[in-house]
Amino acid sequence: MKDERLKVALVGCGTVGSQVARMILELDDDLASRIGRPLELVGIGVRRLELERPGIDRNLLTTDLMGLVSRDDLDLVIEVIGGIEPARSVILRAIESKASVVTANKALLASDGEAIFGAAEAAGVDVYYEAAVAGAIPIIRPLRESLVGDAVTAVMGIVNGTTNFILDKMASQGASFADALAEAQHLGFAEADPTADVEGFDAAAKAAILAGLAFHSRVRLDDVTREGITGVTVEDVADAKAMNATIKLIAKASLAPDDSISVGVHPTMVANSHPLASVPGAYNAIFIESRNAGQLMFMGPGAGGSPTASAIMGDLVTAARNRVRGVAGPGESVYSRRAITPAGQALSGYFVSLLVADEPGVLASVASAFAAQDVSLQAVRQEAAMVGDDGPLARLGVMTHLSSNAAVERTLVELGKQPYLQGTPRVLRFEG
Amino acid sequence: MKDERLKVALVGCGTVGSQVARMILELDDDLASRIGRPLELVGIGVRRLELERPGIDRNLLTTDLMGLVSRDDLDLVIEVIGGIEPARSVILRAIESKASVVTANKALLASDGEAIFGAAEAAGVDVYYEAAVAGAIPIIRPLRESLVGDAVTAVMGIVNGTTNFILDKMASQGASFADALAEAQHLGFAEADPTADVEGFDAAAKAAILAGLAFHSRVRLDDVTREGITGVTVEDVADAKAMNATIKLIAKASLAPDDSISVGVHPTMVANSHPLASVPGAYNAIFIESRNAGQLMFMGPGAGGSPTASAIMGDLVTAARNRVRGVAGPGESVYSRRAITPAGQALSGYFVSLLVADEPGVLASVASAFAAQDVSLQAVRQEAAMVGDDGPLARLGVMTHLSSNAAVERTLVELGKQPYLQGTPRVLRFEG
Repeated sequence: MKDERLKVALVGCGTVGSQVARMILELDDDLASRIGRPLELVGIGVRRLELERPGIDRNLLTTDLMGLVSRDDLDLVIEVIGGIEPARSVILRAIESKASVVTANKALLASDGEAIFGAAEAAGVDVYYEAAVAGAIPIIRPLRESLVGDAVTAVMGIVNGTTNFILDKMASQGASFADALAEAQHLGFAEADPTADVEGFDAAAKAAILAGLAFHSRVRLDDVTREGITGVTVEDVADAKAMNATIKLIAKASLAPDDSISVGVHPTMVANSHPLASVPGAYNAIFIESRNAGQLMFMGPGAGGSPTASAIMGDLVTAARNRVRGVAGPGESVYSRRAITPAGQALSGYFVSLLVADEPGVLASVASAFAAQDVSLQAVRQEAAMVGDDGPLARLGVMTHLSSNAAVERTLVELGKQPYLQGTPRVLRFEG
Repeated sequence: MKDERLKVALVGCGTVGSQVARMILELDDDLASRIGRPLELVGIGVRRLELERPGIDRNLLTTDLMGLVSRDDLDLVIEVIGGIEPARSVILRAIESKASVVTANKALLASDGEAIFGAAEAAGVDVYYEAAVAGAIPIIRPLRESLVGDAVTAVMGIVNGTTNFILDKMASQGASFADALAEAQHLGFAEADPTADVEGFDAAAKAAILAGLAFHSRVRLDDVTREGITGVTVEDVADAKAMNATIKLIAKASLAPDDSISVGVHPTMVANSHPLASVPGAYNAIFIESRNAGQLMFMGPGAGGSPTASAIMGDLVTAARNRVRGVAGPGESVYSRRAITPAGQALSGYFVSLLVADEPGVLASVASAFAAQDVSLQAVRQEAAMVGDDGPLARLGVMTHLSSNAAVERTLVELGKQPYLQGTPRVLRFEG
């Protein structure tokens, strides 16, 4: 084994970065044996020097991030600060310095992956990002390599642990969104500002990355239709229970009939018979449908310092091995350049919950309103609801076959004109 | 893209091979785009030329396997004939011809991997074998690369679909092993000679491969303690139900306290709370415990032509990409050279079912027999059984904490001397 150490710069030393630093030191000999050469952590870029960082040599710390990644002797740069800037400049500069890059930055890759992968390709270095999606669950590599000889038709999953924890609480304890969110924040599963999680931005970035990999195309954050869970009510949760289903925030990318890519993040009723329905707490899971492999499911911790660091370390060793052999792994594969399905045209099953006057002919009228828009129904549930000012009311739960969002919307506009409709209908996607 | 085609030889054209041939032809353009160069199937080695092979050009067929893989213009060889010979000679000759090899041959790799990986390393070619374990489930690559920066502590799974189908039938229908096997054979889930599956040889080969990868050591088939499911009775299945568990054939490799590798295949009571307990029918699943990543689970179709072919195609594209870039992937990693835990010393939880005379003092005597061998108990269940010739009998179900097989055996020898013991105790491993 050559003794000359591979020089590693770590940018970011928070929850994840500090774990990465710990593992590089702890596993030193093992990593050297697995890579063929030892690693040397030459610097750690941080925002504040004064913080206590147990086990970390203060002399490694610097606030000059660009200076750190501009060193001409770097082999590998790990970026775990997240966000767009300065992460973007740090990574591009690292690539200029001919270092391979390992990042967990889903937001950056989903919004600006093209520039980064292009620069890496030109410089002949690797950019690995297993940690960017579903934490410790190996999903990037299986899509990039294991399934690369197959034809993936759909990738869907629970890729945000915070929202899964909240929805789990709402389902198991009948808690409201607000109460479940408060508990998640109290337990550290949600940030003080939970917007990125509960509004689905985090999941949407991951959906864009998964969609691009699965379908060998470039998919950007703006291509992803997005709906968070802030609007999920206790009534929705009760409806789901009644339909023997569970509400999950599902990120889904699938091939539309016209071969375009339909990609979105939506709170979705998942039938309890589906493996994704039972994914607990803050876990993540990815479900893949492939023409030849059939159905595959991957489950594991989707966040947290150690799991995310584990994924980063796997990429680090792989990039380092390439370095030792003087090669780079295969780059981004976007040859098929598929179009994105226009939002309104994306197909899904839908569940529509309607409060209607409990009178003869109402059900028939509702059914024909759907039929008029070519939305075919696979199940209808009716139950007596409270008595309203104008007499008894009924709750209708309507489950549709695959239909376009636009057709369902048009149906709801029609129903809105009907005198028997009370209040606003609630609509959720459905996965069988 | 360079047009010059990469030359591929396929050895074996049965259930899996014919699907591989189909996919190479069907996905031609996609594969070319993903690899950077098109593939050309230059020959297919078969045993009998006269068989009908729809969609396959008869001119490609040859019975001269060694002749086919001796061509000096080969880039890639796919071996799907299975078994030791002639597969071994075919692969070694292919490597001599400087071709990279993709194989699904677990038996060969588990018994003679050293020679094959050594030859590949020396020749600078790849040997990939994702399809050798758990069919289409990506598990080799995640262990080799995704988790290579972490410290795996245990890998366990259901890696044989035939036995899982049989045990599933026994549990769901109360069928006997013989009846469940007959149904599996009728449905094509079990071979006419089911020995390799039901006696655990197939699972043991996969366990050896997983153990070697997980712990960076060389693990051979003979290192794996093996117990099939032919001895699993309806009583065992009933006991499992009573303990809120399910019997699965579990292949498990874990690190012993002394850092040696404990690896075995055994029918095991798996608590229903464990994700492996609910893996249905002919599915496979692998459960990984890693120091930093935590618990990961992978599930999918474990066998069948298309799923296995999908795994082979993933390896084929990856090996072909390496070929195009003039490199080989990282070889076998066995640096840590761990010892194998002697069979008797391997630790496991155990469930022991005893039929005893229903008399005062018997439970105390049984408990002290375990205690005398330092086997601590985590649960005991007693229920009245049928009345025997010498009075009423009781069925004792004893669940132990982690203990060595040897200690449990010694306990049973002691109990065998007790007058109150009726018949032979039944013993199963337990996973909580």
